[in-house]
Amino acid sequence: MPTPRSLRRQNPITFVLAGILCIGFFIFFFSSSDGAPAVGTQGTGETASNVLSPPSLPFRKSKSNEPPPAPPVVHYYMNNLTNTRTPIENSETVLILTPLAKFYQEYWDNLLRISYPHNLVSLGFIIPKTKEGNAAYADLQTQISKTQNGPKLKRFASITILRQDTESPLNSQSEAERHKMENQKPRRAAMAKARNSLLFTTMGPTTSWVLWLDADIVEFPPTMIQDLAAYDVPIIAPNCFQRFYNEDTKKNDIRGYDFNNWIDSPTAQALGSKMGKDDILLEGYGSMATYRSLMAKMYDPSADPGAKIKLDGVGGAALLVKAEVHRDGAMFPPFPFYHLIETEGFAKMASRLNWESYGLPHYLVYHYNE
Amino acid sequence: MPTPRSLRRQNPITFVLAGILCIGFFIFFFSSSDGAPAVGTQGTGETASNVLSPPSLPFRKSKSNEPPPAPPVVHYYMNNLTNTRTPIENSETVLILTPLAKFYQEYWDNLLRISYPHNLVSLGFIIPKTKEGNAAYADLQTQISKTQNGPKLKRFASITILRQDTESPLNSQSEAERHKMENQKPRRAAMAKARNSLLFTTMGPTTSWVLWLDADIVEFPPTMIQDLAAYDVPIIAPNCFQRFYNEDTKKNDIRGYDFNNWIDSPTAQALGSKMGKDDILLEGYGSMATYRSLMAKMYDPSADPGAKIKLDGVGGAALLVKAEVHRDGAMFPPFPFYHLIETEGFAKMASRLNWESYGLPHYLVYHYNE
Repeated sequence: MPTPRSLRRQNPITFVLAGILCIGFFIFFFSSSDGAPAVGTQGTGETASNVLSPPSLPFRKSKSNEPPPAPPVVHYYMNNLTNTRTPIENSETVLILTPLAKFYQEYWDNLLRISYPHNLVSLGFIIPKTKEGNAAYADLQTQISKTQNGPKLKRFASITILRQDTESPLNSQSEAERHKMENQKPRRAAMAKARNSLLFTTMGPTTSWVLWLDADIVEFPPTMIQDLAAYDVPIIAPNCFQRFYNEDTKKNDIRGYDFNNWIDSPTAQALGSKMGKDDILLEGYGSMATYRSLMAKMYDPSADPGAKIKLDGVGGAALLVKAEVHRDGAMFPPFPFYHLIETEGFAKMASRLNWESYGLPHYLVYHYNE
Repeated sequence: MPTPRSLRRQNPITFVLAGILCIGFFIFFFSSSDGAPAVGTQGTGETASNVLSPPSLPFRKSKSNEPPPAPPVVHYYMNNLTNTRTPIENSETVLILTPLAKFYQEYWDNLLRISYPHNLVSLGFIIPKTKEGNAAYADLQTQISKTQNGPKLKRFASITILRQDTESPLNSQSEAERHKMENQKPRRAAMAKARNSLLFTTMGPTTSWVLWLDADIVEFPPTMIQDLAAYDVPIIAPNCFQRFYNEDTKKNDIRGYDFNNWIDSPTAQALGSKMGKDDILLEGYGSMATYRSLMAKMYDPSADPGAKIKLDGVGGAALLVKAEVHRDGAMFPPFPFYHLIETEGFAKMASRLNWESYGLPHYLVYHYNE
């Protein structure tokens, strides 16, 4: 039985944004006016050559002794920011967000292989301020430095790293402790806050898509972003599996890993209706049998690989979300929301905003096997 | 009886980000390393003089024929982003967010008078794509252009304008139509989505405080940001009043205006418990007497002007929020959340995240009187 991924969360409590790493890459906007009235100075090559302050992140001044030039006024005209089934043709930007507790080289190598144009991809990380987090931060920066100084086609548009404080992590981080059901709510709540911090801080006016990608996802098809976007649905999750050596068959094998992608059941609904308002439903515990239909159990190599199903709960291992879903307000509830929390609560909140979630049972991504 | 401010909402339905106006001003960061390990190229004057891509908003290239320089790596070290009772001394940045349906010159003139250092203040607007919105957009840009090219001390750090589509506005926008109780839910939901779009798009890694300020607030003390921040609480609202000519006394007078700042009542709780899950409680309707304690009714010119009270619901007329409250995930629910919506739902959601709301009954801000 694989470890449910919800047990593998770190435990940050309060968040302090500490280290911001910003790596620039130049992207061209060739879009015409949107027809709205334009008053004020039109941006020209001259003014655009200034170091601008973006909406909320001011830049260092180049040389502190020079008098600052007059602030330029630059207009960015975007013909209705889109998120379509052909995102590359429409130059749609993707923001890949990863809560990072431990750095896996395989994660980074796999990320570099995505065939979506890297100059349309921004990365965002949130890393706990723990000893393990510091190590992950150092490893990540080494790789970023290598990539962003490497071949131009491999460089990402920008990279942001947030550091978060961990006020009172559970003292024991043993395997057994992480599994305990009563530890799940604070763990998932802390993870939800980390995701929200990352999302609220990094999403900008040009973001078309947000890809949530956990740091322990080490293998997926390089075309995944295009593949998922082609479904043109608000929220879509591939099926998260794990490779392992099967002692029974003496062969390499795979097994379902992320149990947070599910279709709801009357049993789970009934359980929830009898709960106190602060109680949450959890998946993968024998003492709380929900009889939900888990996508992790639906994989069939002989089925139509493109088949999609409607989901009521989603996991965050790999999850493509149209930016407008988040802009409407859909976030990861750190509190019980219809007795759901974090990514599962996100799917419920999105559905309250009339955005539907889908899953691809036969499209696999792989979780690291420690 | 003044018009409840919840009736004065525009009705945007779906949101398209169209016009982004970005006005740069240079801010210096003189903070030391936060002790986290730093790997990679340290930012220098040379690299910082490049036009950088911020986390999610890439810039125009200065001259399209020049080969792009190698992407610079710049580190922003911030000693634990703070929000304290002495925000100016700590150079804390404030993001002022305004949903703007109609431009009032008095709003802008009043905004220019704030004594908080303007180079620490970013502005964000969301404007509907209606005829009225286009006019407001033009007026706003004229004033922005004047201000940002005017005296350096009056210039703001940056300004972002989002345009939103309005798919199916109510056909009749008459006074009577706006008042109808059954129109309140879609109106407030649309306003909530507008606030969320603005918030998710403009908040950046350096934002310490968010000041929500409605476009029809035309008068408050220039020290308001410092005054409110001095309470060092997560969420705080001054009391929103309106000046008018009192026909009875034949004198200029004032009256309470924003009825969304309230302390909950057992009656309202009981009403909510009998409602369907999609029904909402509304304030200011005789047919739904909630017996909540309204801050708008508590003003006493002879009382201690600094007195604060705990609130359960807040309005958005003027509202100072610590950025970490939003980063934790607190947004403006466009769906009924504990039978509350928009700003009132925000206070409830914040309380679910253990952030408390406060009000200042005797600290007044003034709403425009049409």
